[in-house]
Amino acid sequence: MTWFAETLYRDVRQSFRVERVLHEGRSRFQDIKVLQTAEFGRMLVLDGICQTTERDEFIYHEMMVHVPLFAHGAARRVLIVGGGDGGILEEVLKHPVERVVLVEIDAEVIAVAREWLAAVCGQAFADPRLALIVGDGARYAAETTERFDVVIVDSSDPIGPAEVLFAGPFYGACRRCLAPGGIMVNQNGVPFLQPEELRNACRQLKPIFPHSGFYVVPVPTYYGGCMALAWAAAHDLASQSPAEIAARAARLALPLRYYNPAVHAAAFALPEYVRRLMA
Amino acid sequence: MTWFAETLYRDVRQSFRVERVLHEGRSRFQDIKVLQTAEFGRMLVLDGICQTTERDEFIYHEMMVHVPLFAHGAARRVLIVGGGDGGILEEVLKHPVERVVLVEIDAEVIAVAREWLAAVCGQAFADPRLALIVGDGARYAAETTERFDVVIVDSSDPIGPAEVLFAGPFYGACRRCLAPGGIMVNQNGVPFLQPEELRNACRQLKPIFPHSGFYVVPVPTYYGGCMALAWAAAHDLASQSPAEIAARAARLALPLRYYNPAVHAAAFALPEYVRRLMA
Repeated sequence: MTWFAETLYRDVRQSFRVERVLHEGRSRFQDIKVLQTAEFGRMLVLDGICQTTERDEFIYHEMMVHVPLFAHGAARRVLIVGGGDGGILEEVLKHPVERVVLVEIDAEVIAVAREWLAAVCGQAFADPRLALIVGDGARYAAETTERFDVVIVDSSDPIGPAEVLFAGPFYGACRRCLAPGGIMVNQNGVPFLQPEELRNACRQLKPIFPHSGFYVVPVPTYYGGCMALAWAAAHDLASQSPAEIAARAARLALPLRYYNPAVHAAAFALPEYVRRLMA
Repeated sequence: MTWFAETLYRDVRQSFRVERVLHEGRSRFQDIKVLQTAEFGRMLVLDGICQTTERDEFIYHEMMVHVPLFAHGAARRVLIVGGGDGGILEEVLKHPVERVVLVEIDAEVIAVAREWLAAVCGQAFADPRLALIVGDGARYAAETTERFDVVIVDSSDPIGPAEVLFAGPFYGACRRCLAPGGIMVNQNGVPFLQPEELRNACRQLKPIFPHSGFYVVPVPTYYGGCMALAWAAAHDLASQSPAEIAARAARLALPLRYYNPAVHAAAFALPEYVRRLMA
């Protein structure tokens, strides 16, 4: 029995009591661990940073997926950039989508998730609607001739392999491969402790998309209060009719653990300190 | 330079880099420390648990105060039970209230806050509208002949001196000393990690108040996602008109850092896992 201390920040840390180290390895891109923690169940750790846990993954994954999919209302084709743990994929497949392309740069992450994180990815990797590509998501978005209704960028923080996924050229590529009415979302860190991520996303998204902004969700293992998820589209997601969103959600009646239509609308209400970062 | 590790949970911890221990003492009730932390500025620690910090105190204090005060709309008399650090008091005094009674059991907490936590309490303890009582808040609520428009219970967790503030008799006493149209709020922990606190508040409040429920706020140093704040009143705070709340807030035009009318309304949208704890 020992402790794992996350090393994301210099001056504040979260630590987890670890019952067992289930997997330890190094891919071409990063250090990969799966820990059996006492509080959060199994935890995926990349380069010393907690990515997802069995116990709280539903919060992040549900909000990354069901907000853009219900905001769209008729998504048939979805692109996931990153998301090698399969958690986003599993949520997307709950919708009546026809095709999901998942482009993950690190095959090791997928293999480790399939072996150790069934509670996160379920049977999602076996779904016939999935086209799994091991490769560079930024390059895929820039080069594909496919068009997608929703693009979900589920990356690690903008240090290491994911850095390119927070830059203007990638956002431009995302816009390029969106079908009319399409929506892009990505994670932009915890604004209380990572304000620059949010400022940067504002700067990058505004010139590229007619409408963009953020919605927020507090995920226990993403330390520091609410996390900001960015959205970008040709229309304004923050002013959609709550009644219409609720009607769409009611038609599908998914058994979810965080998302509901009230939470969907509420997530677009940004605290003052977040609004000021966007100014 | 050292680290302070909070000992609230057995299997998960937050730790803070400490630049200096500013105060260390023991009152009749509890161990009291003020730490200069690198990330969150000065931090008040009672019995090993972080109570408030200079850097994120605004999130908790603004939501504990401005939600019930704007929901009420014409509060003149406010009772604060606990709140010896003065953070709640400072926010209440931004409203046109006539009298605030603050009943804190531990005089040492007040003295320490006045000496070390000016960024939290400001000049609030010198305000002529304040009646400061060092004593048992539960007993005060049970015995006072005064009636209050808003009662705010700002306690530590239900272990140690604050335990009595989470029990039925105290909630009954709060109802007794509310004026017609009055509102009570208190903190009920982080439901992801402390689900029993929320379940217990449900059980206790329902038989006593015509309407009760929760609203949520993610506070960085209250680890574990959103914190639940309970509300109880003769009317339903969750279905108040957002336009009316916004009009009240606009009239006062307070320069706040977390609260705004959109956040006020959004805080009543509860995640599914929180709703299920209430069932």
